[in-house]
Amino acid sequence: MSPGYLPTSSRIPHRILSPRQPGGQFAPKAWAGEVVPFRAAIFTEGHATLGAEFILTAPSGTKTTHRLRCVQAGLDRWEALALVDETGEWTFRLRAWVDDWATWLHAATLKIPAGVDIPLTFDTGEALLRRALTDRAGDATITHALAQLTTESLAPDVRLAAVSDPSLTAKLEAHPLTSLVTVGDEHPLRVERARAGVGAWYEFFPRSEGAKKHKDGSWASGTFATAAKRLPAIADMGFTVVYLPPIHPIGESYRKGPNNSLGAGPNDPGSPWAIGSSAGGHDAIHPDLGTVSDFTAFLNSAKKHHLEVAIDLALQCSPDHPWVTEHPEWFAHRADGSIAYAENPPKKYQDIYPLDFDGDPVGLRTEILQIVEFWVDLGVKIFRVDNPHTKPLQFWEWLLHEVAAKHPDVVFLAEAFTRPEPLRALAEVGFQQSYTYFTWRNTKPELESYLRELSHDTSDFLRPNLFVNTPDILTEYLQFGGVAAYRIRAAIAATASPSWGVYSGFELIENVARPGSEENIDNEKYEYRPRNWAQAEKNGTSLAPYLRKLNSIRREHPALRQLKNLDVHWSDDDAILVFSKFLEGRFTETGQPDALIIAVNVDPHSVRETTVHLDLERLGLAADAEFEVTELLTDTQFTWGRDNYVRLDAFTNPVHILKVEPGTART
Amino acid sequence: MSPGYLPTSSRIPHRILSPRQPGGQFAPKAWAGEVVPFRAAIFTEGHATLGAEFILTAPSGTKTTHRLRCVQAGLDRWEALALVDETGEWTFRLRAWVDDWATWLHAATLKIPAGVDIPLTFDTGEALLRRALTDRAGDATITHALAQLTTESLAPDVRLAAVSDPSLTAKLEAHPLTSLVTVGDEHPLRVERARAGVGAWYEFFPRSEGAKKHKDGSWASGTFATAAKRLPAIADMGFTVVYLPPIHPIGESYRKGPNNSLGAGPNDPGSPWAIGSSAGGHDAIHPDLGTVSDFTAFLNSAKKHHLEVAIDLALQCSPDHPWVTEHPEWFAHRADGSIAYAENPPKKYQDIYPLDFDGDPVGLRTEILQIVEFWVDLGVKIFRVDNPHTKPLQFWEWLLHEVAAKHPDVVFLAEAFTRPEPLRALAEVGFQQSYTYFTWRNTKPELESYLRELSHDTSDFLRPNLFVNTPDILTEYLQFGGVAAYRIRAAIAATASPSWGVYSGFELIENVARPGSEENIDNEKYEYRPRNWAQAEKNGTSLAPYLRKLNSIRREHPALRQLKNLDVHWSDDDAILVFSKFLEGRFTETGQPDALIIAVNVDPHSVRETTVHLDLERLGLAADAEFEVTELLTDTQFTWGRDNYVRLDAFTNPVHILKVEPGTART
Repeated sequence: MSPGYLPTSSRIPHRILSPRQPGGQFAPKAWAGEVVPFRAAIFTEGHATLGAEFILTAPSGTKTTHRLRCVQAGLDRWEALALVDETGEWTFRLRAWVDDWATWLHAATLKIPAGVDIPLTFDTGEALLRRALTDRAGDATITHALAQLTTESLAPDVRLAAVSDPSLTAKLEAHPLTSLVTVGDEHPLRVERARAGVGAWYEFFPRSEGAKKHKDGSWASGTFATAAKRLPAIADMGFTVVYLPPIHPIGESYRKGPNNSLGAGPNDPGSPWAIGSSAGGHDAIHPDLGTVSDFTAFLNSAKKHHLEVAIDLALQCSPDHPWVTEHPEWFAHRADGSIAYAENPPKKYQDIYPLDFDGDPVGLRTEILQIVEFWVDLGVKIFRVDNPHTKPLQFWEWLLHEVAAKHPDVVFLAEAFTRPEPLRALAEVGFQQSYTYFTWRNTKPELESYLRELSHDTSDFLRPNLFVNTPDILTEYLQFGGVAAYRIRAAIAATASPSWGVYSGFELIENVARPGSEENIDNEKYEYRPRNWAQAEKNGTSLAPYLRKLNSIRREHPALRQLKNLDVHWSDDDAILVFSKFLEGRFTETGQPDALIIAVNVDPHSVRETTVHLDLERLGLAADAEFEVTELLTDTQFTWGRDNYVRLDAFTNPVHILKVEPGTART
Repeated sequence: MSPGYLPTSSRIPHRILSPRQPGGQFAPKAWAGEVVPFRAAIFTEGHATLGAEFILTAPSGTKTTHRLRCVQAGLDRWEALALVDETGEWTFRLRAWVDDWATWLHAATLKIPAGVDIPLTFDTGEALLRRALTDRAGDATITHALAQLTTESLAPDVRLAAVSDPSLTAKLEAHPLTSLVTVGDEHPLRVERARAGVGAWYEFFPRSEGAKKHKDGSWASGTFATAAKRLPAIADMGFTVVYLPPIHPIGESYRKGPNNSLGAGPNDPGSPWAIGSSAGGHDAIHPDLGTVSDFTAFLNSAKKHHLEVAIDLALQCSPDHPWVTEHPEWFAHRADGSIAYAENPPKKYQDIYPLDFDGDPVGLRTEILQIVEFWVDLGVKIFRVDNPHTKPLQFWEWLLHEVAAKHPDVVFLAEAFTRPEPLRALAEVGFQQSYTYFTWRNTKPELESYLRELSHDTSDFLRPNLFVNTPDILTEYLQFGGVAAYRIRAAIAATASPSWGVYSGFELIENVARPGSEENIDNEKYEYRPRNWAQAEKNGTSLAPYLRKLNSIRREHPALRQLKNLDVHWSDDDAILVFSKFLEGRFTETGQPDALIIAVNVDPHSVRETTVHLDLERLGLAADAEFEVTELLTDTQFTWGRDNYVRLDAFTNPVHILKVEPGTART
């Protein structure tokens, strides 16, 4: 007969659950140093005991195998955690089998004590052990077990006990007797450098640092040289990335004045996002900040302080940008032949000309690639991309793949403050990181659901960078929540996500908004804003020590530098959020497990007491364990267990970051 | 320059949301007569107005287009409903575009009244209308609008009003002025015959109908001839499918006696699922029931009553099955050379030999295909498959595709009472219908969540057949809920799902279980069970009139014969479940919309009063409409609106099935 239809399902059916991208169009992502949960649904007909492993192939060609364990039998869910430590294109595939010995042992353990089929059951076991010996001739453990099993003069329970010995089980688990072996398809996994996933970001305007107002009202701008003086303090707070708003020449035409007003005065520096003037465009440096070599010196200075520099990629032009005359085909034109400025009818934004990606797509994208490469060649490896959702998705897919092919160490952060669909799509096509809705998720239920989504549902393709504020975002929560709000938000961001960020001024509790808006009054986007950091620290009004503490906790606790290891726990209070981060000892440098419990009173106007109920198994502990914890912000010790009283006072300390002391658990 | 990387995303990004199969490995499913929601996420950068349509290609090659409407702007969700009326392999693809006219009109409507860019805006509009005229030269509507638009002596608001006229809008919506046109990939959709999706099933044991006990305790079995006498009553109750447990010869070895006892007596007929004896196997008929021609006569009799016959495909054998001697390679063998019977250690099921699909896979599957074809050739087009999850998934994928290729009208119902993963996988590889967990979903929250899952989350590949009971399932809810429980469950099953089923005896409220079990005492699986149907109806204790009513409501209301049109609504009571079914007038024979609201008190021991809050837009009504409804079980009229008082008395009438009277809505 002809074979007819060829089934596509496997002898042991399985479905890869993670890592995967929803559409399957692009490879899922991880970063070097990430502990990746590899998950699959695996089942077969009948009641045989299954075994399975993932075979990972690193870019270098090294293969490793990772045995899965069944984590939810009723849902046929299996999992293996593996650390991926090499950047590049990995592949993984599943191998599953029926474990003949485990299947037999399970049946024998039920049948022998019940007196069912005793000789036959032992005969079957004997055949299996003989099979095990065929490629392990002379193995003492197996030979001994076989001898006991086949000694008919021994009582059945003794014979069974002999083959139930853990040493034999371990041996036959390590090299199982298999049947129905199924090898799945190969799947890709793109591993990027650690910074793609982990970093503490600090955003500041270099022109503000060292800016001086003259008596006549004019300003001396800060420069890369004066801005570099701020770097030690930023590094001292524990940040690892400094992100600079656009450093390019700023347009004069329709320049915006203070508080987004039309018609800037002669002393107004303009918005750095209105890019381009006679001094140049996206590959030029604002003359006030310095020269290319001043910028290089700034990069070197940052490097000395173990800081990476991220610059802004804002693909839009002021009317004075050189492209306006050199490449009018890169802009949309109106019926009267003029170049179209940005609009949100009936509002006009005449200081900004959006690019038209359809007029000369190849020319424009080639130019943009060259711009990125210009900065990469200078040493910039991180780009924060302004409003990527207002440019074609296709363009980003092209640009990010072109850059990655030549410079796989470049990281792009998408400022995709837009609807969920484009936000996710940008992450899927290649952005290494994304801003998120975090600033607008402030209640306990919102945070529980959103942290779960970010750490589990979307984490194979979308890496959150939890900024607590930006020059565009000063939420009502921060405006009206006082210092407590700032502490709460920073603690959640720094502990929930391996990437988080702060825009300068946060540490000074700058919480006054322009009326009717959600951004700071006298916004730094339109003005110089030198700040007296030292004075604030001296007065004790700066949050810098708190941020320093958070970043130092992050540095000391590898569990906090993972994303997918977050679990939400129950508290009886409707404002006390509880989550944990856990990393097994086999993945830490010390070999000790790293377990942290974060409890936050997210109501910044209250003192709350409640009971927190922990799912201790998610922390690698027995469900009913008792153990010692250290609260890291206050260096206080407690004894904790499954159910714990907490009191969180928004006016003094709204947050607990509790470290489970390894080795202290007892049941 | 070389083009470099070629993006895979589209100029207008989009993602097909339905119909689709989760893995993408198999085509999603619909049935002839199903109204299919075609859904996509579509977005673009910027604020242009988008347009989109699905292009469907029927198996005959006919192409139709279905314009999508944006149903959730914030989530970029678009939808078109389309009736698929032809069986076979359809394809569909998305076409999306920027609607230049709609984009302009939206901007003009904001700018002209604000006095912004008036001449320029009108110039842009003029150019668009001239473009519209290039392929619609002489179109009076457009020509007139153009004339008004360009008459500068008219006031701007008059000129704008002229081009905002609905007749022009309709014309330019029907044939839009497009740019950035994007055509997506072609996707498959498998459309099966209506019975794959819609049917009212009645299960009965033909041997019981007409069975007679002699004075000596022996029995005269019912036959196909006596069983056929029951068909008119089944048809009269409105059922459309009769499903017969296995009709093959029954083994003698280890035959089970009453109540699953070991060691049947000489008068015990045995379980029909212990298939095979010296009289034959899966392609034979039990001699007690009659001959092949008696069976054919039964089929013909059923056909006369507009009933289809489903038989059981139970791939297992009694020790007396001919295959045991003819094809020992189709069974697993134990260490002593004997054939392995079924086990759940330490329990033995010696009356059943499972098949081994790995010994001679090609030989066995070829034989099974031949068996299916044997019955198909006799006229059986529906198979209820016993325990498909205990056979390899690969085998089912092969069998179902082979059968579908030759006999696309054959329907397989999977009795996959197993974990969710294999249940879904069986549906994905090709089963036309599945039993579900419905019998074990009895509380309001359970039902809300499960009905949503069945009608939305899984409905593109898994079609539920909501059986209310089976010979294996008499739930605690039915055991202890009295008549109310039976009414409640039947009403939910019959209205929530286009396929539902009843095992005979349900109408007699046979609710006594074998102690400690979840199945009927003195189970018909092991005994003859003649029933006095007429007497019960005469006594008024039969639920037959109620079932008749439910099936007649299903017949009169096309909305009930759809699956994906179910919506859950809110009631303030924790036991009053409310859902609706709605079908637009363009999909009904009468042209009238068909809207039903089902309210059920799922607590069979209580009288409940509450307020029901309806999302009237899901019923094609204004959110605040008032309208007339008819309660179809009692033929009572009410005036309903968004918020409605209901009283549901479990002891008299626990269910409302309310028909919205077309044309009565007022706001």
